[in-house]
Amino acid sequence: MLVRLLYASRASGPVTQDTLDAILAESRRNNPALGITGILCHGGDVYMQVLEGGREAVNTLYNRIVRDARHDPVTLLHYQEITERRFAGWTMGQVNLHKVNPSILLKYSEKPQLDPFVTPGCAAMALLEELMATAQIVGRTG
Amino acid sequence: MLVRLLYASRASGPVTQDTLDAILAESRRNNPALGITGILCHGGDVYMQVLEGGREAVNTLYNRIVRDARHDPVTLLHYQEITERRFAGWTMGQVNLHKVNPSILLKYSEKPQLDPFVTPGCAAMALLEELMATAQIVGRTG
Amino acid sequence: MLVRLLYASRASGPVTQDTLDAILAESRRNNPALGITGILCHGGDVYMQVLEGGREAVNTLYNRIVRDARHDPVTLLHYQEITERRFAGWTMGQVNLHKVNPSILLKYSEKPQLDPFVTPGCAAMALLEELMATAQIVGRTG
Amino acid sequence: MLVRLLYASRASGPVTQDTLDAILAESRRNNPALGITGILCHGGDVYMQVLEGGREAVNTLYNRIVRDARHDPVTLLHYQEITERRFAGWTMGQVNLHKVNPSILLKYSEKPQLDPFVTPGCAAMALLEELMATAQIVGRTG
Amino acid sequence: MLVRLLYASRASGPVTQDTLDAILAESRRNNPALGITGILCHGGDVYMQVLEGGREAVNTLYNRIVRDARHDPVTLLHYQEITERRFAGWTMGQVNLHKVNPSILLKYSEKPQLDPFVTPGCAAMALLEELMATAQIVGRTG
Amino acid sequence: MLVRLLYASRASGPVTQDTLDAILAESRRNNPALGITGILCHGGDVYMQVLEGGREAVNTLYNRIVRDARHDPVTLLHYQEITERRFAGWTMGQVNLHKVNPSILLKYSEKPQLDPFVTPGCAAMALLEELMATAQIVGRTG
Amino acid sequence: MLVRLLYASRASGPVTQDTLDAILAESRRNNPALGITGILCHGGDVYMQVLEGGREAVNTLYNRIVRDARHDPVTLLHYQEITERRFAGWTMGQVNLHKVNPSILLKYSEKPQLDPFVTPGCAAMALLEELMATAQIVGRTG
Amino acid sequence: MLVRLLYASRASGPVTQDTLDAILAESRRNNPALGITGILCHGGDVYMQVLEGGREAVNTLYNRIVRDARHDPVTLLHYQEITERRFAGWTMGQVNLHKVNPSILLKYSEKPQLDPFVTPGCAAMALLEELMATAQIVGRTG
Amino acid sequence: MLVRLLYASRASGPVTQDTLDAILAESRRNNPALGITGILCHGGDVYMQVLEGGREAVNTLYNRIVRDARHDPVTLLHYQEITERRFAGWTMGQVNLHKVNPSILLKYSEKPQLDPFVTPGCAAMALLEELMATAQIVGRTG
Amino acid sequence: MLVRLLYASRASGPVTQDTLDAILAESRRNNPALGITGILCHGGDVYMQVLEGGREAVNTLYNRIVRDARHDPVTLLHYQEITERRFAGWTMGQVNLHKVNPSILLKYSEKPQLDPFVTPGCAAMALLEELMATAQIVGRTG
Ligand SMILES: Cc1cc2nc3c(=O)[nH]c(=O)nc-3n(C[C@H](O)[C@H](O)[C@H](O)COP(=O)(O)O)c2cc1C
Ligand SMILES: Cc1cc2nc3c(=O)[nH]c(=O)nc-3n(C[C@H](O)[C@H](O)[C@H](O)COP(=O)(O)O)c2cc1C
Ligand SMILES: Cc1cc2nc3c(=O)[nH]c(=O)nc-3n(C[C@H](O)[C@H](O)[C@H](O)COP(=O)(O)O)c2cc1C
Ligand SMILES: Cc1cc2nc3c(=O)[nH]c(=O)nc-3n(C[C@H](O)[C@H](O)[C@H](O)COP(=O)(O)O)c2cc1C
Ligand SMILES: Cc1cc2nc3c(=O)[nH]c(=O)nc-3n(C[C@H](O)[C@H](O)[C@H](O)COP(=O)(O)O)c2cc1C
Ligand SMILES: Cc1cc2nc3c(=O)[nH]c(=O)nc-3n(C[C@H](O)[C@H](O)[C@H](O)COP(=O)(O)O)c2cc1C
Ligand SMILES: Cc1cc2nc3c(=O)[nH]c(=O)nc-3n(C[C@H](O)[C@H](O)[C@H](O)COP(=O)(O)O)c2cc1C
Ligand SMILES: Cc1cc2nc3c(=O)[nH]c(=O)nc-3n(C[C@H](O)[C@H](O)[C@H](O)COP(=O)(O)O)c2cc1C
Ligand SMILES: Cc1cc2nc3c(=O)[nH]c(=O)nc-3n(C[C@H](O)[C@H](O)[C@H](O)COP(=O)(O)O)c2cc1C
Ligand SMILES: Cc1cc2nc3c(=O)[nH]c(=O)nc-3n(C[C@H](O)[C@H](O)[C@H](O)COP(=O)(O)O)c2cc1C
Repeated sequence: MLVRLLYASRASGPVTQDTLDAILAESRRNNPALGITGILCHGGDVYMQVLEGGREAVNTLYNRIVRDARHDPVTLLHYQEITERRFAGWTMGQVNLHKVNPSILLKYSEKPQLDPFVTPGCAAMALLEELMATAQIVGRTG
Repeated sequence: MLVRLLYASRASGPVTQDTLDAILAESRRNNPALGITGILCHGGDVYMQVLEGGREAVNTLYNRIVRDARHDPVTLLHYQEITERRFAGWTMGQVNLHKVNPSILLKYSEKPQLDPFVTPGCAAMALLEELMATAQIVGRTG
Repeated sequence: MLVRLLYASRASGPVTQDTLDAILAESRRNNPALGITGILCHGGDVYMQVLEGGREAVNTLYNRIVRDARHDPVTLLHYQEITERRFAGWTMGQVNLHKVNPSILLKYSEKPQLDPFVTPGCAAMALLEELMATAQIVGRTG
Repeated sequence: MLVRLLYASRASGPVTQDTLDAILAESRRNNPALGITGILCHGGDVYMQVLEGGREAVNTLYNRIVRDARHDPVTLLHYQEITERRFAGWTMGQVNLHKVNPSILLKYSEKPQLDPFVTPGCAAMALLEELMATAQIVGRTG
Repeated sequence: MLVRLLYASRASGPVTQDTLDAILAESRRNNPALGITGILCHGGDVYMQVLEGGREAVNTLYNRIVRDARHDPVTLLHYQEITERRFAGWTMGQVNLHKVNPSILLKYSEKPQLDPFVTPGCAAMALLEELMATAQIVGRTG
Repeated sequence: MLVRLLYASRASGPVTQDTLDAILAESRRNNPALGITGILCHGGDVYMQVLEGGREAVNTLYNRIVRDARHDPVTLLHYQEITERRFAGWTMGQVNLHKVNPSILLKYSEKPQLDPFVTPGCAAMALLEELMATAQIVGRTG
Repeated sequence: MLVRLLYASRASGPVTQDTLDAILAESRRNNPALGITGILCHGGDVYMQVLEGGREAVNTLYNRIVRDARHDPVTLLHYQEITERRFAGWTMGQVNLHKVNPSILLKYSEKPQLDPFVTPGCAAMALLEELMATAQIVGRTG
Repeated sequence: MLVRLLYASRASGPVTQDTLDAILAESRRNNPALGITGILCHGGDVYMQVLEGGREAVNTLYNRIVRDARHDPVTLLHYQEITERRFAGWTMGQVNLHKVNPSILLKYSEKPQLDPFVTPGCAAMALLEELMATAQIVGRTG
Repeated sequence: MLVRLLYASRASGPVTQDTLDAILAESRRNNPALGITGILCHGGDVYMQVLEGGREAVNTLYNRIVRDARHDPVTLLHYQEITERRFAGWTMGQVNLHKVNPSILLKYSEKPQLDPFVTPGCAAMALLEELMATAQIVGRTG
Repeated sequence: MLVRLLYASRASGPVTQDTLDAILAESRRNNPALGITGILCHGGDVYMQVLEGGREAVNTLYNRIVRDARHDPVTLLHYQEITERRFAGWTMGQVNLHKVNPSILLKYSEKPQLDPFVTPGCAAMALLEELMATAQIVGRTG
């Protein structure tokens, strides 16, 4: 059973390049074996991540992520059983929301900075689809 | 929560270039900070404006607009909670209805001049979409 | 409130070029002020006309047309409240059904001559759309 | 081909009991032979009538009604090809809109008096259905 | 053209019985002539009101309400062109939200006190329907 | 924004009456203030719980539950933004799955004991609805 | 493959009780072995018959009926592959259309006598359903 | 009223070029006056023909075809009232099923030879559409 | 993953009471442990059986049934992944098709004896539902 | 009656080129006469095969395949009555799942190796469609 899970979280401290590199390194080390694919967005002190994979694998990882002290609280935006992944090509793609065209963010949120904590799940998913369609995701895995 | 609001109003006095410039200046000064985007149409003594943004911001502005002595009465044509803006690219685009091809106006109204006060909300929205699709809106903000 | 009205009628006498010219002259004189657009088809002793415009204007004209001694009976084929005109570009377009490719007529009727009195309203509307799509209407108004 | 036609008209003079009796007498004399059934509402100087029957018969009668000097203008509210009548039981039922509970009228119109000339066709049809459902129609024919 | 408008507002000062009586007196004085029906809910410093009637009448009143100093800000929750009223029987029904069963409020909101400013329009409408269905509205007008 | 969240988990040790009492006591102590309602099912070493409430509140609690050492892993079965709660009447209702009629369990699962880890989310939700409809939930809060 | 076939025909001579008895005798002799069920309506010089059964059986019978000199022309009104019969209980039910309440006929046709040759197939089927629902069919077979 | 009728039949004797020429000659002689268009397929001892035209005309011809000794039994596959013909361009197009690519036949039937007697009507219609779309029909009439 | 599987088969020899008793004994011995529920119909030399349960369990049993020498060929009529069983109450219910009212069989088949080998899967399923709804199934298990 | 059947099975021993050649030889020898088309996928010790053809032919073959000792268990993933084949061009196409781009497999399954035994039928069908669309099937038959 495949699922898609989208959550947002607030970083406990400043999101330095090192923090990000560490998380992405862990993702790229663990996700292929777990059959997990997805995208990690960050911007200011906010993370937003979509995870796709088997229901058990995604939840095991989500449990770990919830317990990770580097962010808190972790808030689910969307969760669905699926028959087809949409992000199958990314072990863990990456988006710096500060580099995204503000009018794309504005299309889905009240201000030109995304605040996922007040954004409905479907709008957050639609933003991710638009980022993918406009090739703003870094780190594709062949 | 994003909303889209469309209203029409009748100008209290003649709509001179100065009046228009004043309104547009106020819009461009205030709307970006409020996260509001939209289009202002005018023609004869009629205004028709679409506003998009957070529910609170749009309503705060609409309250101000309703109390503005430069027009009266202010009549809602359409109001909807949305997940995606359609006019995200305009701080406040501008359309002079007198310069629009009359057969476009005729498509949505009884006479080749738009009278929004007798036009159903969905027809007024459809006219705005057609104006955008045919690139008749001035003042795009990159 | 915009409406679309389609009717057929049988001419009281032979449809000469003069009769037609008279009707079209009256249409072009009156319709723009009424905000009415449409198409007049004729063939043999049959008229078929679609009228679009404000509900009041279209009915006022239809009342006049019903009382016009040049044809009788006048039979409604289709009537609908609409939000968009389909024939906004014609003050009163014109189609000589005798010049239309018979296989187009045959597509919507039992014989290669249209008999609107036994044709359902939706088939008659579909024929008009096909005539417009295949550019068989004369007299477009810019 | 069965059709249902609904129109409204404004009486040329005061609607006395005699005028009404005359119209209903004509209806009851002519309609059965034409296979026409329906309802005639009146109130103040307004008539609203629904006619059901063969397309030809209904239009022949509507032509006559349009030419009748006792009212003007005659405005179509609804017209549809149908497979089943809804008013098959009335040669010409009768409703005095002044005797109808005002809150029923208010449900479908802006004021507790019906003004069919500003009422959309579907709301007028819905009012007629509610009048039938609440047994406010006089003159059923077995 | 009938519309339904639902808004919420925050009272400028304490909502005493006198304030309420004044508003309801004004409503009952003005609304019948305007053809306006509806429901006024209050609870704590919050008002929530649904208004039904002609588009022009409802907007004229809403303009007045927006300018009324007794509350601010006034926030639209729902607005729709309709063919049938749902609250035709109330000149201005009344609900004290503090007297409503908390589990009914909880069904539509995050806490057992309604906070309409964070409630989506459709949930607020659904709450009003449930209040009507469970006969919790005071002040029906025959 | 209201959400509904359904998860299953496997108890770390035997589910004694004491463990259950402790969890239910915590739930009844915390949930009302959080505006959270729901149902807790248990059977063998399996928990299945549905939580309804504000998105933030439900996620804060879910984060806590994920970190609770008394069970592991915690697996999401269903998550949805909603406009109406279905379990508004229970601070935390309780179901002992061992006391449920086995043919109800069999209707939604492969064996007459529920194994939520292999059950699709919609089937698990349907089982909960059937338990509520057949009054098998203990501990309603007025 | 089950089918339902509905046709109408015009009797070559007067429909006497003897003609009818002969047809019904033939039907009752042949249809059970063919697995055919249905209804035969007659009225004036018109027959209308619905036949249900295997596609081959119904067509074999229809071929025979088309060649039967007692009527002509035979006109199909409706034909459909089905998964469930609607007239499974009648070897060949019987309806004398002259004995049917005229307002039932009027509901589906232009005049209170059915003329199936100008009736759309779906209206004719709807009439048959109404006759069955109002128990006007004679000759049920247990 | 336009209808589309599709039937299959088994030839009484061998289908020689002469038999075919005779049938096609009759079709081309009679069909234009009747307003009938269509396609005749043959292959082995099987005919399959689609006829479009007025309901009366198509049935009159079908009656004649049913009585034609050159084939038997004649089995209806599909019959429908339509508003638009699909084969308006063929007085009587012609397809030799033996010359059709077998994998097209296989797409709609159990074996690479079409046996219409065991084929559902919709599959047979779909085959005809595919033959038209792939230009395998001979004898188009301008 | 739950599935529903419906098949028909032809008995290799006469279906005596002993054969049936043996099959039902095996079913009742094995099915509860496999979590399989269903219905076995028989009539003449035909079996028709519906099986519900986990996908693996149902297929393991179906493999065994296909290899069972007591019948051949075994033909699938219907197969679907489901979220709810419809026959959860029967370890293996039983229907003697010879005792079923023939007009129920006739409703779904060409002759009053069911021949499942020419019956579409959906019609066979509909027959089973009707047998359950009319309480013609023997051997319910509490 | 055409059907489509999809199943998966586990090979009893290693899948050598010889085993595969033998199966494909049998398929190409038998399937054309049976009117059966389809695709055989293999990868590791797993087979997945789609079969299209007449219901009887497909089931006869499936019975034989179920009894074939070279694999076990055989598990149905999808079965449907169809009007059009999707794999009409392959006597028995062939796919080596080990040569398929892993991200295509990942799109439909939890790991980049397909495990059809835990894959829902619709996802397995979607994978096959994508393999066909991306031309990864070997052995097309003209
Ligand atoms: C925002 C965020 C996203 C993360 N995403 C992933 C991920 O996709 N995969 C992953 O393995 N760990 C991810 N982690 C890290 C996990 O919480 C955890 O630290 C990691 O899985 C431990 O991996 P290790 O056991 O290999 O050290 C993420 C952490 C954060 C804060
Ligand atoms: C037709 C019309 C449209 C207006 N649109 C806007 C607008 O989009 N944004 C805005 O800030 N003010 C708009 N205004 C002006 C407001 O009513 C008000 O005067 C203004 O917001 C006050 O701005 P200030 O406080 O910056 O002076 C509009 C006024 C009119 C008459
Ligand atoms: C078939 C037919 C179509 C007509 N269409 C129109 C029309 O579109 N507009 C119009 O003004 N008159 C139309 N007329 C003429 C009217 O019946 C009427 O004669 C005319 O409106 C009177 O115009 P006048 O008052 O300007 O002379 C039509 C008449 C016929 C017979
Ligand atoms: C509001 C109104 C409704 C009418 N309804 C009908 C009607 O249903 N049937 C009818 O025959 N005449 C009706 N008439 C009258 C016709 O216009 C016309 O006078 C009548 O059909 C002439 O009938 P006669 O030829 O039998 O005198 C109506 C007239 C009015 C003003
Ligand atoms: C929450 C609220 C609801 C109101 N509702 C109505 C109303 O339904 N009808 C009305 O006439 N006035 C209503 N009013 C009062 C109007 O704002 C305004 O004071 C009133 O229409 C003036 O009436 P008057 O001109 O008759 O004094 C409301 C005011 C508030 C604060
Ligand atoms: C299966 C399970 C369900 C739980 N449900 C709830 C709950 O609904 N509400 C709650 O407050 N705590 C619940 N808890 C307990 C929390 O994990 C946590 O221990 C508790 O919220 C701490 O409460 P306290 O801070 O008041 O001690 C649950 C724990 C388990 C194992
Ligand atoms: C209107 C009409 C309906 C008929 N319906 C049936 C029928 O349902 N079954 C039937 O066997 N014959 C029916 N027939 C008679 C057949 O045309 C034919 O005469 C008859 O099947 C011959 O039966 P026999 O071979 O047993 O004499 C009908 C004839 C007519 C005119
Ligand atoms: C398979 C088949 C198809 C036929 N199609 C037609 C046709 O489309 N039009 C037609 O007039 N006759 C068609 N016929 C011939 C008619 O059955 C009949 O013989 C013919 O209409 C008599 O025409 P005639 O009166 O001009 O001689 C067809 C016959 C067969 C066997
Ligand atoms: C028509 C038919 C239906 C059957 N249904 C079942 C069944 O539902 N369950 C079952 O265990 N065996 C069923 N069987 C018997 C199996 O084919 C097989 O003989 C049996 O499962 C072996 O059981 P055993 O290993 O306990 O002897 C059926 C056999 C036939 C012919
Ligand atoms: C995975 C698998 C797929 C098979 N597919 C087919 C097939 O498509 N057609 C076929 O005739 N046999 C197929 N077979 C072989 C049959 O099980 C059986 O051995 C074969 O039909 C016997 O053919 P023969 O009687 O011509 O020797 C398949 C076997 C396996 C294990």
